[in-house]
Amino acid sequence: MSSPLRLGVAGLGTVGAALLKILDRQAAALAARTGRHIAVTAISAQNRDKARDVDLARFAWFSDPVALAGSPDIDVFVELIGGADGVAYAAVETALSNGTSVVTANKALIAKHGLHLAKLAETKGVALGFEASVAGGIPIIKTLRDSLAGNRVSRVYGILNGTCNYILSRMEAEQISFGECLAAAQKLGYAEADPSFDIGGYDTAHKLAILTALAFGTEIAPDAIAVEGIEKITLADIAAASELGYRIKLLGVAERTQAGIEQRVHPTMVPRSSPIAQVMGVTNAVTIDADAVQELTLVGPGAGGAATASSVVSDIADIARGLRLPPFGVPANALAPLRRAAIQTHEGGYYIRLSVFDRPGAAAAIATRMADRAISLESIVQRRRAGEQKGASAVPVILITHATSEKLIGEALKDVLADGFIAEPPQVIRIERE
Amino acid sequence: MSSPLRLGVAGLGTVGAALLKILDRQAAALAARTGRHIAVTAISAQNRDKARDVDLARFAWFSDPVALAGSPDIDVFVELIGGADGVAYAAVETALSNGTSVVTANKALIAKHGLHLAKLAETKGVALGFEASVAGGIPIIKTLRDSLAGNRVSRVYGILNGTCNYILSRMEAEQISFGECLAAAQKLGYAEADPSFDIGGYDTAHKLAILTALAFGTEIAPDAIAVEGIEKITLADIAAASELGYRIKLLGVAERTQAGIEQRVHPTMVPRSSPIAQVMGVTNAVTIDADAVQELTLVGPGAGGAATASSVVSDIADIARGLRLPPFGVPANALAPLRRAAIQTHEGGYYIRLSVFDRPGAAAAIATRMADRAISLESIVQRRRAGEQKGASAVPVILITHATSEKLIGEALKDVLADGFIAEPPQVIRIERE
Repeated sequence: MSSPLRLGVAGLGTVGAALLKILDRQAAALAARTGRHIAVTAISAQNRDKARDVDLARFAWFSDPVALAGSPDIDVFVELIGGADGVAYAAVETALSNGTSVVTANKALIAKHGLHLAKLAETKGVALGFEASVAGGIPIIKTLRDSLAGNRVSRVYGILNGTCNYILSRMEAEQISFGECLAAAQKLGYAEADPSFDIGGYDTAHKLAILTALAFGTEIAPDAIAVEGIEKITLADIAAASELGYRIKLLGVAERTQAGIEQRVHPTMVPRSSPIAQVMGVTNAVTIDADAVQELTLVGPGAGGAATASSVVSDIADIARGLRLPPFGVPANALAPLRRAAIQTHEGGYYIRLSVFDRPGAAAAIATRMADRAISLESIVQRRRAGEQKGASAVPVILITHATSEKLIGEALKDVLADGFIAEPPQVIRIERE
Repeated sequence: MSSPLRLGVAGLGTVGAALLKILDRQAAALAARTGRHIAVTAISAQNRDKARDVDLARFAWFSDPVALAGSPDIDVFVELIGGADGVAYAAVETALSNGTSVVTANKALIAKHGLHLAKLAETKGVALGFEASVAGGIPIIKTLRDSLAGNRVSRVYGILNGTCNYILSRMEAEQISFGECLAAAQKLGYAEADPSFDIGGYDTAHKLAILTALAFGTEIAPDAIAVEGIEKITLADIAAASELGYRIKLLGVAERTQAGIEQRVHPTMVPRSSPIAQVMGVTNAVTIDADAVQELTLVGPGAGGAATASSVVSDIADIARGLRLPPFGVPANALAPLRRAAIQTHEGGYYIRLSVFDRPGAAAAIATRMADRAISLESIVQRRRAGEQKGASAVPVILITHATSEKLIGEALKDVLADGFIAEPPQVIRIERE
């Protein structure tokens, strides 16, 4: 057996502590699977004395993670600190510059600096693994990079944020509002004290940017993503979705179109019978459409210490086995700049919920405005709420359109607004076909 | 860029022809992804002149696949002939003995000779890839071998035969009998003229044997699998499953138990809300339970030329990238003999459908026989068929048990039979928990 693979681990939160436990528990199996002993030799964390249920005394201690990253006594630097910049970035860059391989779970870092770091890793002939940065325990990076090497991907989409999926699942299951669900999620530790990064879709966007680069061989472009969060989703939308055969999910979608690569994160109506619609709670799922494999879906835990650490270990095992692939599957210099398809060119079906003043001809006028733009309707439902008086107030009108474009929908809704029939801004949710 | 990777492809049926097309279409992408040009240089097939929509004139032709396997002018022998023995086996052994890497889609070959062939490949320092042998386009081999390297697997199970899943899905959707569905499947080309290999569960068993070896690090033991097919499933079972919150799927299940490794293939009641219950038609799915990742499910096409060829290409790409892992993730000599847990020790819930003579006390007597063996019942449903006369004939009684053992169920049913209350042999279907 070759010499041990020496790891330096920086960051001992949930994932870091789980990693140390897995490496202990699976030491013999990992040696058999990789042909090398894998040994943590040094660690770094903010607080050495925090209770972690792991014996840290056997490891060399570095108070400065950058110093650990630069240590000549490690072969792999495992970055579990987090954050796009600051000490995580400094440490990873130091390790790579030093010719030390890096494994990270840091989506923000890879989304922002992945291209630069990949080039650095390739120049130095070392590995940069980030399987854990997207969808926790789901091996989506290796699937795109290795298993689909013979495929041309046309679309990759998924549920990439457990907090949002938990909230949407619970709103539907218990018929409670977004605000109540968010508070419950915070209480259970599924949502941060400041939840805007999750529920605003930005966390999903970081992950999507990484998947896009792998799926389409493009440079990472997190700023070229149209992002909407789930804050605006109401119980009325959830009920209408259910009635019309859909379910609402926050999806990240990257798609090859005539206009370029479309990247978008938004609440989405998915057919209730689709695999992705079955994914409830904090679970994540990713579906890939590609020319040879057609459709492949991976479902698993998107977060959690042990599941995320499982992905970290798979990257470490690849390094122990001697794998030194370009981090994005092709050399970083071969990644093409992303040609962005603007969201205005998006084509698909739409769900539109309008609050319409209860006047004769309102629904007909709305339908006419859609027809003016050649938008064909799959369904139009107008229903007075139980107990409401005729003419008393606004009534909901729900439209489902066949495939049209974002631009035309915008124009038609502007006309509807100008007609003075609607009481509130329209609720518009894109429909994703299977 | 390094020298081209030269492929010899034997067998040009659906998968072989799709492989040649993918290698043409993706030539540039594969070169970028692997750092080498991948070039088919020689081929072999039963019939050179069959219409295939691919230009074969540019390849050297071998009428004898074994001669192709032994050719010094190829780096990888791609075996798409099929069959556990005969020419496929001779060709693969020849290639490996010659120091030529092998990629195969042949589940029967790997299930029967995988251990020997893996040892041979390791001795010669070459690769033996068989991603395509299980679940078509789903990358389950790499997921178990690479992505879950840090996990201890407790169970792997799945829908591994598209024909059976198609038949069961259609029986449910259209309320037509097994025989009618089978005939339809044969007409559509989803089932062979002699369908017994698929519907009897043997195809699933071959695939399961391969997954077991990878998941548990054991020698392949296709003869240590308890196999039942779907021939006995009736519309009455499908209706009862639906009513009780289950769906019937033919599953292959390998599970670590106190008694050893349990391997079984049988029609199974799965909770209707589980991911695996949503998989309809010819689609396949595999779920892995493991200590770190918890639960991971992969869903995709289990057959078809392009999807299966996608997996073949992923193995070829690994070889082009220089990967030479032990075929089963650990050296073949380190695979432990499989300690078989007999099906009699299986523990789980059971669905039992009895045809009971309509006499007073029959249901009570049956319930008592279950209680005698400490089998606790989740539900017992006795219902006269519409239009039937009281006392005229037998009535169906359906039991769902809580977890018990196969042995106790057998003993209790023997007693029930001896009591003379039932008109037909009982229908027993195991329930698989999520």
